[in-house]
Amino acid sequence: MKRIGRHIFQEAALVATTTIQVRFSEVDSMKVVWHGEYVRYFEDGREAFGRSYPGIGYLDIYEAGYTAPIVDMELHYLRPLSLNEQATVEVRYLKTEAAKLCFEYIVRRSSDGEVAAYGSTTQVFVDGAGDLSLNSPAFYENWKQKWLSE
Amino acid sequence: MKRIGRHIFQEAALVATTTIQVRFSEVDSMKVVWHGEYVRYFEDGREAFGRSYPGIGYLDIYEAGYTAPIVDMELHYLRPLSLNEQATVEVRYLKTEAAKLCFEYIVRRSSDGEVAAYGSTTQVFVDGAGDLSLNSPAFYENWKQKWLSE
Amino acid sequence: MKRIGRHIFQEAALVATTTIQVRFSEVDSMKVVWHGEYVRYFEDGREAFGRSYPGIGYLDIYEAGYTAPIVDMELHYLRPLSLNEQATVEVRYLKTEAAKLCFEYIVRRSSDGEVAAYGSTTQVFVDGAGDLSLNSPAFYENWKQKWLSE
Amino acid sequence: MKRIGRHIFQEAALVATTTIQVRFSEVDSMKVVWHGEYVRYFEDGREAFGRSYPGIGYLDIYEAGYTAPIVDMELHYLRPLSLNEQATVEVRYLKTEAAKLCFEYIVRRSSDGEVAAYGSTTQVFVDGAGDLSLNSPAFYENWKQKWLSE
Repeated sequence: MKRIGRHIFQEAALVATTTIQVRFSEVDSMKVVWHGEYVRYFEDGREAFGRSYPGIGYLDIYEAGYTAPIVDMELHYLRPLSLNEQATVEVRYLKTEAAKLCFEYIVRRSSDGEVAAYGSTTQVFVDGAGDLSLNSPAFYENWKQKWLSE
Repeated sequence: MKRIGRHIFQEAALVATTTIQVRFSEVDSMKVVWHGEYVRYFEDGREAFGRSYPGIGYLDIYEAGYTAPIVDMELHYLRPLSLNEQATVEVRYLKTEAAKLCFEYIVRRSSDGEVAAYGSTTQVFVDGAGDLSLNSPAFYENWKQKWLSE
Repeated sequence: MKRIGRHIFQEAALVATTTIQVRFSEVDSMKVVWHGEYVRYFEDGREAFGRSYPGIGYLDIYEAGYTAPIVDMELHYLRPLSLNEQATVEVRYLKTEAAKLCFEYIVRRSSDGEVAAYGSTTQVFVDGAGDLSLNSPAFYENWKQKWLSE
Repeated sequence: MKRIGRHIFQEAALVATTTIQVRFSEVDSMKVVWHGEYVRYFEDGREAFGRSYPGIGYLDIYEAGYTAPIVDMELHYLRPLSLNEQATVEVRYLKTEAAKLCFEYIVRRSSDGEVAAYGSTTQVFVDGAGDLSLNSPAFYENWKQKWLSE
């Protein structure tokens, strides 16, 4: 079990990490990374996750006839990131029976390993007609079977 | 009392609204506004709030010797916004005894008034030495007295 | 005839202006608007132009079966824009016989009218098969006839 | 001598390259990288250049008491980049006697080496009083001597 501040992280079924380099354009007038940029860091992490466990990247979902819009997102900021720093984004896939993609994220400064921010996203599946998919799409079930079964 | 989905909005002490025009660069390959752009819409709302109730804009806070970093942010997405659409951002300041700035946000499509997204942010005050301000800074107490007293 | 620095502006056939408000997220660690944000300001201007002279907005072009990618862009920076400032973007449509959209842009600080930046973009037309349109599309010729004829 | 389209590249004194991964958030509704994102790609290249030839990164310049704002930027687009693609950014430092930083950039699709875009930037030096530095700052001359002398 993992705890950051008041938050207790659930057991992740699958984990991927990626490293990001803070860009000049991401730093605000307070000389730290603007809080909105972490949405991109989370997305970088999610894309890295998709490369590690192929089958649920944006293009995979699209080719299966779906989109997977984010419906809920939380971000919690503990320490700032500055220009020239690197950070690692840990992406944690949470097991769920629902037709959802649930991820948690932990962004750590590479220099000292301290947590800069953490958060979560929930995605649902929308079919080609624009309707919410209440049942888990076949491609997602296949992906689960491939990566989550022991 | 106001309810959107499962969320019950608290009574807001002060409210401001601003209108935003969806930009081409904000729309993603699914032809809807990318979820990260709402962080900017919230900030647009917060800046409009600062203009309506002067004294707690970024520059005011900075001149008082503080910064007010966001420590928590939540975003919930109900309906997409598309190219050429306009939206109104309602910003709701929540009364608090703590040394914090707490806002809730409701983003509505201008065309039909439907809620596209809602969320919240919490900001703390950090002084010039980089320390968290546990007591409410004088400038913030003055602002409260000016705008919140009956 | 108009001159800014070394640049002599061509006679514009049609002109539109729009006002932008500098956002916190657009300001970099030097406390001025990051140079890349002017690409968005130019685009804001172009969208305002499309609303003033309907028929060549992104959606119009798309519905006519084309896209109009930018192939050349120039930006020249004279003075910075700071947080809380407003600026006006003047967009100047340049007459051309070619199958192109040519615009010039002048961004002025609202406070004193001084030029912050200027530049230009050139767009071509690409048809549904992905091929460059060497001849001017019918919808563009119609638009020209409507707005450019005396 | 190097030629791309009508453009003849000058002999570069120093060259660095970096690889970028197209992000979902960078792709527009035409399903290609939005033209404004290349400003960031150029900056990624410039930061990589600063790491390869230390002494003229943003922080180096800042610590020497200067800033180096971009005063001119050109971008030329030849082929689109799509989601999931990688690109290499080649940054070419051009020798100059002036108190300027002049770079050229070539962005190539990693898959086939084709040029997606190219361009240039010019930066000047501004001192702590906000004045344009007509003479080349000492730290820049030292950097030149270190990296450009044979």
